[in-house]
Amino acid sequence: MRHYDLCVIGSGPAGQRAAIQASKLGKSVCVVERREVVGGVAINTGTIPSKAMREAILRAGGHKAAMPTVTDFFSARNALFTSLLGSCQEVIKAEVELVRGHFDRNGVDIVTGVGQFRDEHTIDAIGENATTTLTADFVMIGVGTNPSKPGSMPFDGKTVISSDEILKLPYLPKSMIVVGGGVIGTEYASMLQALGVKVTLIEGRTRLLDFVDSEIVEALQYHLRSNGATLRMGEKVVTVRLVEPLSGVRTPSGSQVEAVLESGKAIRADCLLYAVGRQGATDGLNLGAAGLAVDNRGRIKVNQFYQTDVPHIYAAGDVIGFPALASTSLEQGRQAACHMFKHPFERVEETLPYGIYSIPEISMVGWTEERLTAEGVPYESGIAHYREIARGQLLGDEIGMLKLLIHQDSHVILGVHIIGTGATELVHIGQSAIAFKATVEHFVNTVFNYPTLAECYKTAAFNALNKLRAV
Amino acid sequence: MRHYDLCVIGSGPAGQRAAIQASKLGKSVCVVERREVVGGVAINTGTIPSKAMREAILRAGGHKAAMPTVTDFFSARNALFTSLLGSCQEVIKAEVELVRGHFDRNGVDIVTGVGQFRDEHTIDAIGENATTTLTADFVMIGVGTNPSKPGSMPFDGKTVISSDEILKLPYLPKSMIVVGGGVIGTEYASMLQALGVKVTLIEGRTRLLDFVDSEIVEALQYHLRSNGATLRMGEKVVTVRLVEPLSGVRTPSGSQVEAVLESGKAIRADCLLYAVGRQGATDGLNLGAAGLAVDNRGRIKVNQFYQTDVPHIYAAGDVIGFPALASTSLEQGRQAACHMFKHPFERVEETLPYGIYSIPEISMVGWTEERLTAEGVPYESGIAHYREIARGQLLGDEIGMLKLLIHQDSHVILGVHIIGTGATELVHIGQSAIAFKATVEHFVNTVFNYPTLAECYKTAAFNALNKLRAV
Repeated sequence: MRHYDLCVIGSGPAGQRAAIQASKLGKSVCVVERREVVGGVAINTGTIPSKAMREAILRAGGHKAAMPTVTDFFSARNALFTSLLGSCQEVIKAEVELVRGHFDRNGVDIVTGVGQFRDEHTIDAIGENATTTLTADFVMIGVGTNPSKPGSMPFDGKTVISSDEILKLPYLPKSMIVVGGGVIGTEYASMLQALGVKVTLIEGRTRLLDFVDSEIVEALQYHLRSNGATLRMGEKVVTVRLVEPLSGVRTPSGSQVEAVLESGKAIRADCLLYAVGRQGATDGLNLGAAGLAVDNRGRIKVNQFYQTDVPHIYAAGDVIGFPALASTSLEQGRQAACHMFKHPFERVEETLPYGIYSIPEISMVGWTEERLTAEGVPYESGIAHYREIARGQLLGDEIGMLKLLIHQDSHVILGVHIIGTGATELVHIGQSAIAFKATVEHFVNTVFNYPTLAECYKTAAFNALNKLRAV
Repeated sequence: MRHYDLCVIGSGPAGQRAAIQASKLGKSVCVVERREVVGGVAINTGTIPSKAMREAILRAGGHKAAMPTVTDFFSARNALFTSLLGSCQEVIKAEVELVRGHFDRNGVDIVTGVGQFRDEHTIDAIGENATTTLTADFVMIGVGTNPSKPGSMPFDGKTVISSDEILKLPYLPKSMIVVGGGVIGTEYASMLQALGVKVTLIEGRTRLLDFVDSEIVEALQYHLRSNGATLRMGEKVVTVRLVEPLSGVRTPSGSQVEAVLESGKAIRADCLLYAVGRQGATDGLNLGAAGLAVDNRGRIKVNQFYQTDVPHIYAAGDVIGFPALASTSLEQGRQAACHMFKHPFERVEETLPYGIYSIPEISMVGWTEERLTAEGVPYESGIAHYREIARGQLLGDEIGMLKLLIHQDSHVILGVHIIGTGATELVHIGQSAIAFKATVEHFVNTVFNYPTLAECYKTAAFNALNKLRAV
């Protein structure tokens, strides 16, 4: 039986980074992965595939703008969709290779099998043909989540699907009901709409993406609606059932789906994507043998150092809950490994970025107006619309905007909120500024390449200062 | 005769920013512009039009990647090219409106006419029908440059052209000779090649873009060559003449062009773009009346505050020479206005970014390896290739790379050099870090959105630290 300093269960972002950090500190590390391929949901079914699809959709749309004569673009959308899904596979393969290469170069052992606790230091990796048993001083659980699939939903992988199945759909539906306005529901709803699908999004709260600045979400909702999506906010789905297609309608699956809302409305579509919550993938871990339990959504509770109630067992990534983004999971894994082996590390909570790859994309770092108001911090905002900036004109991005939040007295930058092309990249300029406690004057004095979207920082800085002077 | 605190000659980036800064300081300002439209070369014939063309080319190329079945793409390139040029006009119009709006809102007077000094405080704006004479305490010259057009070149606007005429070409040549490997020559050569034109670029020095990091230029040159361009470095053009097309070749202009090099080579193409140097547009200014002179390229000498030899007359922008970028011209104009009215301002030489909108694009901030070596600063470099990064994989950007230069002992970031998609935006993350004298550890501890190109900073930071540890 082999003994390791660290055994990581799951090879997604959290597990990867924990394993590699520990290995860089000279520790022996083993990763137990149930799939044949490494990378977890991020690479194989979630983050990367959806972003590959998004990228391809944007390129196709870019083409439309460049050659407006191609009017039959949407008639070819079905062919496009299946070719998109094919090109995703390429990217996935390349990413899996990258991650495997990282493990190899850092001397991390990989054992294929379902990880299961025998006791709090012993883990069985149950493979198809054999079980490998290993022991470790520390364990890190990074098993991620699966889509929630309530029994009341008639999931069939074709007409009623979860986000795991959307990338395997053999056809592009003409109409789609998306249940859930969180990150996953919003991303897919906006992508499908960009492909010309008639989308109805149903969300129980009164807005999408409840952790995002409300002005930014308002812009997103306005944009989705003005492009033809139907957003049903504050509505709840009561029943979902497969129904015979209306006469004249043909769907590849032979059925349509009907969702009935609490308010009495009935909504019909070719396909329904259920994207309400995800469930910690902790079922097979036999956590009881390690003295651990999970909450009602299968998630594991940790402290600020990602330790569970059993101090030598850590957990990180989606399995511990919000924000469940690949970027933060990577960092959680790194910090967990540093903490267990007493290696110093910085915590960067105030400058954690959030990226939502909807169309248009959204990103933020620092405080929201809601939180500043709640905590009584006097602030001013400075706004730049992409359309005021040469590069925004070049891109034809009408919706894009960047908002700086600054302290009214010190002028220190407290938050950056962006919607529009390149938001997830652009936010990192503001992130550096926040990390160094820069004031808004920093952006006034910065020279930006022309034409760039980065110029929005200067325009927004001037806007904020103008408002402060007007007070 | 109207008197102003400041008279600005030319409404390009330098003039704009000087005028608006002075107006914000409560000064009366007048801008004399010889064109019917404001904005100067940057908006009307140079920066913006070429970037609009570039954007459209990239979108068309993006389409190719998304729908590989469209194999007849390049057969449609002529139609595409003319439609590209049409879409440029839209962007130009919008930009002109933006600039005019800025002037209006800030109460800046605009006088249409050719500015001409009567004496060092008096300027005639010579319009088509009338001449307006005005006086000013301060004058700022921001008249920009024109392409150099040596008499030995048979310019005809169709077969032998300058960069002013390329955007008016009524057809896309099949082959093109580009003379000059500076920013303008390199940008157009790479764009035309991306459109499928057979490009031969001739440059007297042994490399393109002599102020850019040599590793980055090497990557660019390799990329251009591997895509079929011919680069003739260290070669000089001796004669250029229009010739009869080879039998079977038809060109819209009825001729081809032949360039003979000093080395004896003769090169033939459908069209020749002459992009060697630009000439200060100072001819009509009657500078003698103000006690000023120009150098042999029509440029005006200034001190670090952009003052000419006559202290109340300033000059900024392309007319004072390198770097002649819209971004720096804007800042020069602002600093000039602040200096003349004794308003405090920061100088940001160390963090001036440079952006080259070639395909792929290039951007840099801070020191180059060449300069660090020359000044004896011990440094290490950290490199990230886009292909190592998930977003690079998604984009399919094989050439992209980001290089961090850091001080060997202090780990302070000294320079950032990027080639590839989004380089001109991405560089601003590094620019903030340099401005705050950040060490490379800053990027190790930063959480980046996933997947973004911004992650290159983290990968490059790890790479640099690994090298330092290996020493």
